Amino acid sequence: MAAYSLGWCEPGGAPVSTPAGGKGLRQVLAVLGTETAGAPRGAGVTAAVAVELVHTFSLLHDDIMDGDPTRRGRPTVWKAYGTGPAVLAGDALFALAVETLAAAPGADVPSAVRHLSTALNDLVRGQADDLLFESRPWAGPESVRPDEYRAMAEHKTGALLGCATALGAVLAGAPRETVAALDRAGRHLGVAFQVIDDLLGIWGDPAVTGKPVHADLLRGKKTFPVLAALGAPGARPLARLLDSADPLDAADARRAAALIEDIGGRGAATAEARRHIATVGACLDSVPSAARTTRTTDDLRALLDHLVHREM
Amino acid sequence: MAAYSLGWCEPGGAPVSTPAGGKGLRQVLAVLGTETAGAPRGAGVTAAVAVELVHTFSLLHDDIMDGDPTRRGRPTVWKAYGTGPAVLAGDALFALAVETLAAAPGADVPSAVRHLSTALNDLVRGQADDLLFESRPWAGPESVRPDEYRAMAEHKTGALLGCATALGAVLAGAPRETVAALDRAGRHLGVAFQVIDDLLGIWGDPAVTGKPVHADLLRGKKTFPVLAALGAPGARPLARLLDSADPLDAADARRAAALIEDIGGRGAATAEARRHIATVGACLDSVPSAARTTRTTDDLRALLDHLVHREM
Repeated sequence: MAAYSLGWCEPGGAPVSTPAGGKGLRQVLAVLGTETAGAPRGAGVTAAVAVELVHTFSLLHDDIMDGDPTRRGRPTVWKAYGTGPAVLAGDALFALAVETLAAAPGADVPSAVRHLSTALNDLVRGQADDLLFESRPWAGPESVRPDEYRAMAEHKTGALLGCATALGAVLAGAPRETVAALDRAGRHLGVAFQVIDDLLGIWGDPAVTGKPVHADLLRGKKTFPVLAALGAPGARPLARLLDSADPLDAADARRAAALIEDIGGRGAATAEARRHIATVGACLDSVPSAARTTRTTDDLRALLDHLVHREM
Repeated sequence: MAAYSLGWCEPGGAPVSTPAGGKGLRQVLAVLGTETAGAPRGAGVTAAVAVELVHTFSLLHDDIMDGDPTRRGRPTVWKAYGTGPAVLAGDALFALAVETLAAAPGADVPSAVRHLSTALNDLVRGQADDLLFESRPWAGPESVRPDEYRAMAEHKTGALLGCATALGAVLAGAPRETVAALDRAGRHLGVAFQVIDDLLGIWGDPAVTGKPVHADLLRGKKTFPVLAALGAPGARPLARLLDSADPLDAADARRAAALIEDIGGRGAATAEARRHIATVGACLDSVPSAARTTRTTDDLRALLDHLVHREM
């Protein structure tokens, strides 16, 4: 199950012709973040392995919680093996992540384990908030505010990206400000990614995203473009539509997507993502220059530009 | 959910009149194990908290995997809150356990985190084996051997008891032999407990155990009394009964229980549990006497005697 979830084999264990893993973003961030801090590469590799195991564990458990049947074009682990075994496989990956980090050499291992477990707590909190938001109304005093969304996105998506970017520096005993700057860079990147993911969930091509069209709207997910649109002038018809029909049907969702775009939700979300990406750059600039090596900082920046422009 | 799973409140969050937690065995073992090693009590408290959080997490996820609707006379967390939230609550408890240990003072934190993550890996492996054993036949070359059962029980139940008993000593930097002796004591205690649990699952009073009568037999669980009986002379009718009917009905299960007792499975399991308890005593005796304080070792021994005699 672990090998399958990492994209290395078919459900039965047969090798795959093309590995079906993710983009490897967190590993790259771990190595480049470590180099940006002027810390040895080995620390970055340990950080990359630990974070990738946590990421795989969290996808595996999230797919159970969200009831998602596919990921990266393949059945999710719970679909292929059953819910019970999938829960257990996630637990095993989690334990292995902690073990990997605890087995690293050096005096800074406790700080690194603390950093990882803080990210884990944030990740769980963000996932819990995301689930709780679904049952809250779109309008009125109980509705989800944009700042609540940002905190959720920072926890759910940003915490582990921040951990990935900073963990090698923690392991190598880098100064506190360096670690904080790298962690913040990853957290803002996470919020940007979450907002971009929301945009793709409404206006992306299902053939590219691999998700059914308007899935987020149909299940009442509190995504940023919708929250931004509801705060804009002329939001009344949208609020009425979203809060009246429960659940929305496909025609409602199409009409909602058009309304959201008309009153500026799409534009506001794009601007929000760009703001967080700009902050990522500012965080990287704030890494003390004694530690910073220009080449790797440039690599990191080029990677981020590539990722953001490919998706927006 | 975490407070509910620890027995502190009702599902809605209302306080309970009588806390519905467990016996607190792992906490007691953590403190007494620490004192047996001559280490400071504070280390034992940290170990107790970390291990109790892991224990609660593992019960929570096990109940999902096993589909158990009740625990300690109350609905299980997944029954009260749903599977998705229960998976997440378990993950949160797990993260908190690691955080608790990583935040402890002292130079031996990495060893302690490694010790805990080894126990976690063992625990997951044991739970996986226990689930896999259910689909293996009772007789023939594919059947489960008693030594496979012992390894499963050591991993599933013993690893965390061993960790509980030894973790305070690890945190306090106790010598390697002391740690190993305490860990082995806990592991043998775990095998004994698992065998006793198997005995109660067949011949225990459902009003006391809180489990339906013959539940383990009905679902084909590979418990020690049955495995021992199947290795005894005259086991053919039992093997035929178990492998023919799938699943057993209540009358089959009653007949199986009588056959198991007749050909010595009950006696063999009782003897097996006693052997492991004796080994627990030998392990405690092997803790280097410079470290050992007589009073706490006696307390630990009295606790074990009490637990074993209450249950057997």
